[in-house]
Amino acid sequence: MHIETEATQQLQRAAVAARAAARVLARSSEAARNGALAAMAAALRDHQTDILSANEADVGAFNGTNALRDRLTLNPARVEAMAKGLEDVAALPDPLARTLADWTRPNGLRIQRVASPIGVIGMIYESRPNVGADASALCLKSGNAVILRGGSDSANSAKAINLALQQGLDASGLPPACIQVSPNTDRAFVAAMLAGAGLLDLIIPRGGTSLVERVQREARVPVLAHAEGLCHTYVHEAADPSMARAIVVNAKMRRTGICGATETLLIDRSIAAAQLPAIVADLRALGCDFRADAQARMVVPGLKPASEADFDTEWLDAILSIAVVDGVDQALAHIARHGSEHTDAIVTEDRDTADRFLRGSDGAVTLWNASTQFCDGGEFGFGAEIGIATGRLHARGPVGLEQLTTYRYLVTGTGQVRP
Amino acid sequence: MHIETEATQQLQRAAVAARAAARVLARSSEAARNGALAAMAAALRDHQTDILSANEADVGAFNGTNALRDRLTLNPARVEAMAKGLEDVAALPDPLARTLADWTRPNGLRIQRVASPIGVIGMIYESRPNVGADASALCLKSGNAVILRGGSDSANSAKAINLALQQGLDASGLPPACIQVSPNTDRAFVAAMLAGAGLLDLIIPRGGTSLVERVQREARVPVLAHAEGLCHTYVHEAADPSMARAIVVNAKMRRTGICGATETLLIDRSIAAAQLPAIVADLRALGCDFRADAQARMVVPGLKPASEADFDTEWLDAILSIAVVDGVDQALAHIARHGSEHTDAIVTEDRDTADRFLRGSDGAVTLWNASTQFCDGGEFGFGAEIGIATGRLHARGPVGLEQLTTYRYLVTGTGQVRP
Repeated sequence: MHIETEATQQLQRAAVAARAAARVLARSSEAARNGALAAMAAALRDHQTDILSANEADVGAFNGTNALRDRLTLNPARVEAMAKGLEDVAALPDPLARTLADWTRPNGLRIQRVASPIGVIGMIYESRPNVGADASALCLKSGNAVILRGGSDSANSAKAINLALQQGLDASGLPPACIQVSPNTDRAFVAAMLAGAGLLDLIIPRGGTSLVERVQREARVPVLAHAEGLCHTYVHEAADPSMARAIVVNAKMRRTGICGATETLLIDRSIAAAQLPAIVADLRALGCDFRADAQARMVVPGLKPASEADFDTEWLDAILSIAVVDGVDQALAHIARHGSEHTDAIVTEDRDTADRFLRGSDGAVTLWNASTQFCDGGEFGFGAEIGIATGRLHARGPVGLEQLTTYRYLVTGTGQVRP
Repeated sequence: MHIETEATQQLQRAAVAARAAARVLARSSEAARNGALAAMAAALRDHQTDILSANEADVGAFNGTNALRDRLTLNPARVEAMAKGLEDVAALPDPLARTLADWTRPNGLRIQRVASPIGVIGMIYESRPNVGADASALCLKSGNAVILRGGSDSANSAKAINLALQQGLDASGLPPACIQVSPNTDRAFVAAMLAGAGLLDLIIPRGGTSLVERVQREARVPVLAHAEGLCHTYVHEAADPSMARAIVVNAKMRRTGICGATETLLIDRSIAAAQLPAIVADLRALGCDFRADAQARMVVPGLKPASEADFDTEWLDAILSIAVVDGVDQALAHIARHGSEHTDAIVTEDRDTADRFLRGSDGAVTLWNASTQFCDGGEFGFGAEIGIATGRLHARGPVGLEQLTTYRYLVTGTGQVRP
């Protein structure tokens, strides 16, 4: 209870400072925000030695897998990449310079819907130091203050990076409190963030499904996130066979650990015998394993059988679930039952079927004749993304600068009163 | 515990039926949805006798104030107004027919951001029977299923209206489960709705502050709402005096009980002596009372003193808080401290000051030289509104048909795979 109270007080202090900083930031010019990003990039380079030695402490104390250690480890090239990332964000269009709608009423009132910052964002993530720098840049550019709570494994790195970024902000004349890291990595601080209605306007969790699901379950603050990316690629009977092979291989195997990777292949019964063996052979050559329904196993003997639960599993690995379906409606029904409203694709040369699939699906991103791995802010042309959202409100799919803004109305009159 | 479980099961049954209905509705044509609205209007007229006799039972059992009884009471003209309201919604532009963005990437991928329904909406409101009909129409037009939980005082009316609307839906070929009322008015059903993550996609509460605040505090589902409308009108020293008088009188007194009514007048010190007496006299002639700070009382002796808490009070009555300020920055600071991010106005002839106010405010709606009572979906040209939102995400200000939609991405390729 004492720890809870202390964490709440720590969050309150951070959030009050962030709120005041956010008000200054919201009124700042695009030039000021871009200047700050340039100064932050310069400060990262200036502090490279400090950052690397803080990171060494984190890496030295780390006892997880080699893959996770690699994600945690910084070197001069990675610090430079972070700095370059800040400059890239500075070069993106100003998301606050957008008038989203502008109309005049019969009584002469002019109504403008304009983009505006969300306010104070809480970011909860695991142990990749660059996530903190990227999120700081995107929040600053979009006029939002951010409170970062990274994983304990990268606490020293996160603090050193934040110190550099704050010095850059300070040098540029914007309040350093725009970008803060949590004072500790206690779980109580996360609990305080999740309970932080009125203090935080939005929480963005990035990490494993269990972290994100906990945030979604417990937060009293709006959340933008995706817990699972259970993506499907549906090969329709009118698919171009070689296109289908190329798309399925890419959608599954380009990177198996990202949320836009295809986890389940749906293929029409009428072409399964002709095309599935080649697709399986391509994937197997790349080290992929399979969980196939009975009909798929009739066509390609020797595949492991799929349980119903396998179709609900986000493998994030070189494993593909396979189900044979009878046409687009069955494919859509399978996706509705097992999917996560993230990203799904159809491969077909038939426009009517594609239209039916695009109209009938309901996920954040639906593709026709392209790989599900395109669900990405960079690939969408957003320049950068802070995450992917699979909720229904505010933003869906890649969350870039525009999605980090909200709107408000400016109404201009000449003395109108309401009758 | 038994009641909780039963309510949860009731909500689950309703929500599963609503989800299935919403899928059909999401794929329906504009003509089908408009035809359904016409059939629903006709059914309301056909069922007028049943609706009025159900309403008589509600009114007969009612023992609240006369004002509330009047809001509860239906008559032939009010039933006709509900039916006409459905037809008016049918005549509005289709919010699902909007492509919000459309671009092509260098690799040839075409990305379209298209409007789509939110899904299943839970509406929690008090005892005005027409709210259920209005909400049903707006949700249906925007492709959403809705589960209505009205106040117990209007339970018979709500059921009779819903029965008519469902028969209209059925006759038009759309699933009646698109529009459901709660099977009872137990508080446990509200609790089940608030806990309904995965069952409901959005909750819209309409009613008193305590109802809305409870929903905002307890809901595990996204909420669009406003709890308070603590609106300000700021009369700047460069205001046209007669415009200022007209706007303040309208903003406060046109209707005192609506959320866009001004609750606090801020006036510049330099013009207070010259203009405040006339403004007070105008308002007093209409029966308005005052809570004024010390400086205002020096200018207009005899006003009741304002406590700090008065400036945090949404009067919803013929009472106006008055504070004297020194310029636009003090006005903005007062609004930031006491406001509710709903609607605030400035009256001035000075464009630079107006710009500073519009840029510096952060509420959902900010007006220049117009009455705060214009914060209304109809006045904005939305045709109808389901409420006003003062949260930061998804929608702010009047919530009309567009705000009852979300978006998703359709991506069209020619076989692209991600490098």
